[in-house]
Amino acid sequence: MAATSDSAPQVVGLGMCTLDMFFVVPEIPDFGQGIMATAYMRQGGGPVATALVTLTRLGVSTRLIGSIGDDDEGALIRDELRQEGVDVGGLRTTPGARSRVALVLVHKDSGERGFAGRPETCPELQPADLALEEFGDALILIIDNASPATVQAASWARARGMRVVFDGTWTSEHLDRLLPLVDVPIVSVPFVRAWMPGASPRAVLDRLWLHAPQLAVLTLGEQGCAVRSETGARRYPAYPMEAVDTTGAGDAFHGGFIYGLLQGWDEIHTVRFASAVAALNCRQLGGRTALPRLQEVARFLCVQDDLQPLPL
Amino acid sequence: MAATSDSAPQVVGLGMCTLDMFFVVPEIPDFGQGIMATAYMRQGGGPVATALVTLTRLGVSTRLIGSIGDDDEGALIRDELRQEGVDVGGLRTTPGARSRVALVLVHKDSGERGFAGRPETCPELQPADLALEEFGDALILIIDNASPATVQAASWARARGMRVVFDGTWTSEHLDRLLPLVDVPIVSVPFVRAWMPGASPRAVLDRLWLHAPQLAVLTLGEQGCAVRSETGARRYPAYPMEAVDTTGAGDAFHGGFIYGLLQGWDEIHTVRFASAVAALNCRQLGGRTALPRLQEVARFLCVQDDLQPLPL
Repeated sequence: MAATSDSAPQVVGLGMCTLDMFFVVPEIPDFGQGIMATAYMRQGGGPVATALVTLTRLGVSTRLIGSIGDDDEGALIRDELRQEGVDVGGLRTTPGARSRVALVLVHKDSGERGFAGRPETCPELQPADLALEEFGDALILIIDNASPATVQAASWARARGMRVVFDGTWTSEHLDRLLPLVDVPIVSVPFVRAWMPGASPRAVLDRLWLHAPQLAVLTLGEQGCAVRSETGARRYPAYPMEAVDTTGAGDAFHGGFIYGLLQGWDEIHTVRFASAVAALNCRQLGGRTALPRLQEVARFLCVQDDLQPLPL
Repeated sequence: MAATSDSAPQVVGLGMCTLDMFFVVPEIPDFGQGIMATAYMRQGGGPVATALVTLTRLGVSTRLIGSIGDDDEGALIRDELRQEGVDVGGLRTTPGARSRVALVLVHKDSGERGFAGRPETCPELQPADLALEEFGDALILIIDNASPATVQAASWARARGMRVVFDGTWTSEHLDRLLPLVDVPIVSVPFVRAWMPGASPRAVLDRLWLHAPQLAVLTLGEQGCAVRSETGARRYPAYPMEAVDTTGAGDAFHGGFIYGLLQGWDEIHTVRFASAVAALNCRQLGGRTALPRLQEVARFLCVQDDLQPLPL
């Protein structure tokens, strides 16, 4: 079932693929009400998928393993990823299945978002669907969910000496099996809300640290991020930014963070780079539209005051 | 610019074309919130366009004059109309322009709707864009807006002995020039809200009647409709219906009403038929999905108590 490619991806991702429909609105339309949107666009999404697009824009070769339907939406998802340069040979297309779509309502001024997703009917990938050779000589695996398939993928990746990055977007009953296999968990506020409701950033990082990762990260939106390493825990502020749309900011952060890991940078430089990529991605509507090229990140960092760690 | 076809449409429509994206939701997603939609679908819309699809399902030949962009959305709009059998030779495609899209949030249980539309960038048709020969030997013109182009089209239609039906969805500064050219105005509650805020159904019909139409109709959703003719004004209830989605109910009513006009039926039979078409269209998600064939309407009417006029 798995198609392999001759290219040698540096990063392999296993995750959800969506087609996102963005409507920019002055307010949320209530039932019985009609309002005028100020913009509309359609773009592929999904945490790992967008992180891989981030990496390809930065010049890193990537491959996506995921599941789509054989509908128009699936074709749009695949074509867009291919255009971005992501190796889509690992995308499974299920005949008769429908691809996942999501509505994203973006506030005209604040860039705040509301979501409605449709549960896709294309099947979730199972461990038996995976093939070891799809990993090639990749250095990093990124996953956005805890499932039997991602647990399988993570354990294979660890056995091959790859590093495993977990973009913690959703929690599940498989999480406790996954976390010991993760080198860098990067979790978000919605994840924490489900996993440790009401917990402080410090408590979240401490719990992640129990599984002995290399680094543990909690992203905090415009509050930046909190990081735990062997030397303790710190918070880094975000770069100040007039956000047009914050969609994909977290995914862009993941992509940027992985870029830093690939370079072997230390924590502070990796966080600065990832924060810059995330900030730049908020410049335009859509989760991928404004993902920067490497020289844009460099230019941005030249004119910004360096982010300094704060006590957590 | 105008393409003409060899077919001889009985009804020509000049109106807006949209691509509607339906998300069925348990609640409206607020900013900062994510919810799960229970269904998603994509379908062409627009008042006149959907009325024409209604008519083609009932066996009437139709032609649509309208404006779309040369984007994917425009292609979907055109292909779907063509599949339904609507003559799309009069659809103008503007290079580089974007088609109109609309978000429709449908309440999971009640079928209530909230809208957000994007203003299209494809140009509104102007009088100079119209060609008299596009009307062929059609008997009825249907329009959904008061604009210089629809005023032009209506005056041509009247000069050729065609009847003009106005699907009053939006008001504009051209309305006073249009109304004297309209044989059957059928207006909706949102139209009235803009045109005569707070007015009673009776007052709305009386004002429409000043322009000497053949019949004047005000649709009232699940309250049915109010009709003014030479013999006075009446209200007709709607057929009782468990609505899955009320999108397109008004457009379906228009299509059914025009069907009755073409048959030369009297008011009560035309209203019953139009009401049955509208009720049947609410059975499924989407403005066009459940538009009935003629024999479905006949079957429906066989098992329903006849709608009886009530005093207004």
